[in-house]
Amino acid sequence: MKELVKLFDRIIQRVNINLRELEFDVNPIVNKLIPTAQMTKFYAFYGITPHHPLNFVFKHSNLSGSYFLGRCRVTNSLLYKSDIRGDELKKNGDLFQYQGFNIPVSQDEEIHIDDSFLIKTLVHNFSHDPETLERFFIRDTVSTHYANIHGSPSDGCFMGPFSTVDLTTMRDCVIGAYAYVQAGEISHLNVDPGTVWVRQPGVFNFMYRYPRGQLNDYIYFSDGPPRGVFMDFVEDRKEAFQRVFEVVNIENQVAVPGSASLDRFAVIKPKTSIGENVLVAQRAYLQNSTLGKGANAQENCYIINSHLRGNNVTAHGAKIIDADMGNDVFVGFNSFLRGRPDARLTIGKESIVMPHTIIDIRKPMMVPPGTLVWGLVRNAKELKTNSMGLKDFSKIDTRICKGNLLFEGSGGSFVTAFQERIHHILEANGAFYNGNVNRGHAQRNQNISFNTIQPYPEGEKEGMYPTIIIEP
Amino acid sequence: MKELVKLFDRIIQRVNINLRELEFDVNPIVNKLIPTAQMTKFYAFYGITPHHPLNFVFKHSNLSGSYFLGRCRVTNSLLYKSDIRGDELKKNGDLFQYQGFNIPVSQDEEIHIDDSFLIKTLVHNFSHDPETLERFFIRDTVSTHYANIHGSPSDGCFMGPFSTVDLTTMRDCVIGAYAYVQAGEISHLNVDPGTVWVRQPGVFNFMYRYPRGQLNDYIYFSDGPPRGVFMDFVEDRKEAFQRVFEVVNIENQVAVPGSASLDRFAVIKPKTSIGENVLVAQRAYLQNSTLGKGANAQENCYIINSHLRGNNVTAHGAKIIDADMGNDVFVGFNSFLRGRPDARLTIGKESIVMPHTIIDIRKPMMVPPGTLVWGLVRNAKELKTNSMGLKDFSKIDTRICKGNLLFEGSGGSFVTAFQERIHHILEANGAFYNGNVNRGHAQRNQNISFNTIQPYPEGEKEGMYPTIIIEP
Repeated sequence: MKELVKLFDRIIQRVNINLRELEFDVNPIVNKLIPTAQMTKFYAFYGITPHHPLNFVFKHSNLSGSYFLGRCRVTNSLLYKSDIRGDELKKNGDLFQYQGFNIPVSQDEEIHIDDSFLIKTLVHNFSHDPETLERFFIRDTVSTHYANIHGSPSDGCFMGPFSTVDLTTMRDCVIGAYAYVQAGEISHLNVDPGTVWVRQPGVFNFMYRYPRGQLNDYIYFSDGPPRGVFMDFVEDRKEAFQRVFEVVNIENQVAVPGSASLDRFAVIKPKTSIGENVLVAQRAYLQNSTLGKGANAQENCYIINSHLRGNNVTAHGAKIIDADMGNDVFVGFNSFLRGRPDARLTIGKESIVMPHTIIDIRKPMMVPPGTLVWGLVRNAKELKTNSMGLKDFSKIDTRICKGNLLFEGSGGSFVTAFQERIHHILEANGAFYNGNVNRGHAQRNQNISFNTIQPYPEGEKEGMYPTIIIEP
Repeated sequence: MKELVKLFDRIIQRVNINLRELEFDVNPIVNKLIPTAQMTKFYAFYGITPHHPLNFVFKHSNLSGSYFLGRCRVTNSLLYKSDIRGDELKKNGDLFQYQGFNIPVSQDEEIHIDDSFLIKTLVHNFSHDPETLERFFIRDTVSTHYANIHGSPSDGCFMGPFSTVDLTTMRDCVIGAYAYVQAGEISHLNVDPGTVWVRQPGVFNFMYRYPRGQLNDYIYFSDGPPRGVFMDFVEDRKEAFQRVFEVVNIENQVAVPGSASLDRFAVIKPKTSIGENVLVAQRAYLQNSTLGKGANAQENCYIINSHLRGNNVTAHGAKIIDADMGNDVFVGFNSFLRGRPDARLTIGKESIVMPHTIIDIRKPMMVPPGTLVWGLVRNAKELKTNSMGLKDFSKIDTRICKGNLLFEGSGGSFVTAFQERIHHILEANGAFYNGNVNRGHAQRNQNISFNTIQPYPEGEKEGMYPTIIIEP
């Protein structure tokens, strides 16, 4: 166990050096978050398919419970139950378009995780940084429970639980719990918990801040493990995943159309129905719900007692409970949408639920079609404050202040950017597959072999994984 | 699947070239033995412990269902449910004693399997060839069900089902079904089925031949899969292993003393008891039996309704049914000892049951203590022909002809060589551990992590494993 402890100390020190200017000490926060004994308990696994780039190098690391798909190197790092999905990485010969530039990609992109400690973190997509096209790096970084590092190279950062960085390169930053940042490039920033920030420099700036008191009910993190509704919710459903991980092969619990795919590490509870072109990712949890054609259920999402009409995006970590979702509704990262059995939540078609939105109602509520919703919505009054028709939002051309939201710039560009991205997500996931063209993850991920890997079970190296190199 | 078929053809061709002088064509024999589709079905696995040399390189091969422990390279080969145990390989700095020579081992020994097709074969121990101390090679070789390649480098050979080569280097040889060869070095030989041959050149020569008609009841192999009592016996018990392979972690079904070890890929049926210093290897099958202190149950062995008093060796592939075994009884490779519920077999202490012995009785039978037994024994009369007191055997100094046995040379040297080897086997397996010294496999194998590996699930490479490199 000695080497594991040394590695932990080494990572903490490196992150603290990076964050010295922010006077941020990760040690007391992270110190007892995952007991080292816990890190020898769970096997990690990687997928093998002919459709994904295959290349793994794992060195001097612990990887317990983590899932790997695609090209990835992990060195001197601790990954605890993280999902590292390299199935959207750029390939040699691709052209990367950035503003006026058309940059050729000169080698297959790789995810490089060095000297970092990631807890239940999703790493996905590809590096959106034009400066580092072939290497999606995460170094000297600590991220905590259910953080998302999405297309975002990271150097010397700390991410609180349920936080997301999206398409953003960050250096020496602290991202507070449940903060969402999509800002291109940031440096030496300490982003408050519950900040939702979407920026396209010179075009628009969307900035919402959760009222701290209310946010704390959902997620509170200072010393010790994260607490609040979000954690209770996932902890209550933890056991269902155990069965899924205990067996080598698992029987499908539900009919899956030939054009859809259901990951064998997802939990499927009774009365669930899966339509054509549906993608259900690993660690998704579905119960008594209908996923219509082209819907997707991404990693760490929960869909319970709900109906999704079709082409719905349920992004990484989003929860949908007792709700009816129209066609083409987008639900962003880590959103928490909770109706009640006697108070269903209805969201009209083509609505956009911003990443990190909390809708938590006690009375039935209807979000009209084509609405943009954000922030904390617990009743009709808060919905009024924290939503706007997409058409109206598109008309903004200077600035608007609405509740805790400040928006500056072009609402039209903001809405268009979102809609284009949603279209791209559906496309990548195979929602538009017609039996012939537009093949995506739903079609390509149907037949993955999973190999399991484990650490040394005892001795000095207890908890450390041997060096593992996998090539095509 | 294309590449797998090409690989199969390549191996067959190479073996046939080696065996051209013997006019032996392996193609019709092996062609449909394991359908290629079968080779994508089962995961392989390798063990990780701090006590074993760790270094695996798997390239351009299929490894389905195989078990690896220790340093091993597999290239251009098909391994189907084989056990490759590299936990007794020589280490850099060891001295290898061979006749008058004391040869220093200059690097850690590795098992190299190239261009070969091994079916349910056990590869174990280390190269006993003084010409190739650091490389235990198996190349251009096909071996079939339950063959043992024990300390025996092999080049250009074919091994029939349940055959064994032991401490013997072989080149361009055919080893018939259920033949046992321990002969130092052999070349361009076609060894008949049911030959039991132990030779130390210039010292002794033990040669027994099973009567072919009777042997065929137990094992018959010409075209199609092997048939007979041996295959029926293992096929009847196949399902019990499925459960063992289906789950990731398995609960101990039986109390295991702190000084003993029970492999998680063994089958343990009810009413089994395991004593101190006992070693139960992977793919062993124990049912309603007692293993006394220091007994071992090696790969592919079956111990059913039997009592083993202590320090018993049950070698790879041996079966013991309805029997009572005294202390220090040795049962060699692939022996088949079957009493009946109403006709128990008793074997007195310190007896040596030669490798490839069949005792299959209908009436109770007692083998006196200190007996050497060989060949086919189905009743008291055959026991008389095919056994001899060790003391008497030791007195032979020229030759003896007894039933189908021809022995020439020094009986004393033969018995001593066997006894020394049995002592060494017990020692290596940890039978003499006293809580402090004489640690062996029983103590070292208690805590192994197993990682699973699988092939590409579809496409051209279906059934081929990616390149996998594991270093400490």
